[in-house]
Amino acid sequence: MVQRELEVLSPDECFRLLGAASVGRLVYHDDLGPLAVPVNYGMAGQDIVLRVEGGAKRAAMQQPMLAFEVDHVDEDGKSGWSVLVRGAGAEVDPERVPALLRTMDGHFPTPWASGIHNVWLQIVPHNVTGRRLGAEQPSW
Amino acid sequence: MVQRELEVLSPDECFRLLGAASVGRLVYHDDLGPLAVPVNYGMAGQDIVLRVEGGAKRAAMQQPMLAFEVDHVDEDGKSGWSVLVRGAGAEVDPERVPALLRTMDGHFPTPWASGIHNVWLQIVPHNVTGRRLGAEQPSW
Repeated sequence: MVQRELEVLSPDECFRLLGAASVGRLVYHDDLGPLAVPVNYGMAGQDIVLRVEGGAKRAAMQQPMLAFEVDHVDEDGKSGWSVLVRGAGAEVDPERVPALLRTMDGHFPTPWASGIHNVWLQIVPHNVTGRRLGAEQPSW
Repeated sequence: MVQRELEVLSPDECFRLLGAASVGRLVYHDDLGPLAVPVNYGMAGQDIVLRVEGGAKRAAMQQPMLAFEVDHVDEDGKSGWSVLVRGAGAEVDPERVPALLRTMDGHFPTPWASGIHNVWLQIVPHNVTGRRLGAEQPSW
């Protein structure tokens, strides 16, 4: 059985990986407890940018701390990496959206679900951590 | 631009999808707030089963409500599905592990990271919800 050493990623490597992916999971809580929901995202510098219809994701921006998780899982190679951003969310003033777009370097959120996604949200990272399953190790 | 209708999955379909995957994300709280961490899992009936070294995931089982999220993202087809289990976690008594294994129908947790993963955890679902991006829709 192959097992791999879990390596810690640097913040720079975490942001590089975030910049190269397009789907992550918004992690927040509702009346039942914590939950995670996949969502297409973009990036403005180090900030995560979402486009939503409103609803629960918009309401979650009021919470003092959110998380955003992105990972890559290689089932065949039993390998992968994950990055966890923790930070504060905010709704973007519609008048600020054009200026925000100019800072996004082409990495725009493009929702895959039908509907009118005209509410823009932004998560400002307080910290970022990441792990990668690295070299193969003797199995236990 | 392709967009798809978001369809609600039945609980039966959710459990079928959970049964066919092997990596999900444990969603819980720590001192900072909510977070999600990828983990290899198995299933015993409708329960999610994890094997961990201890640490934060083990400690999370004390929280009154956890979530476990599994999804499949098709970046090229801009399609996918996600399932969210919400429920209570518990540590499995080591003496109960052999009996638990016999209820798992071959879907065992097999950690990919090196280390001694001899702490077994179980999440009993209180509810399960799922969504799938279905047929293509006119874009907005």
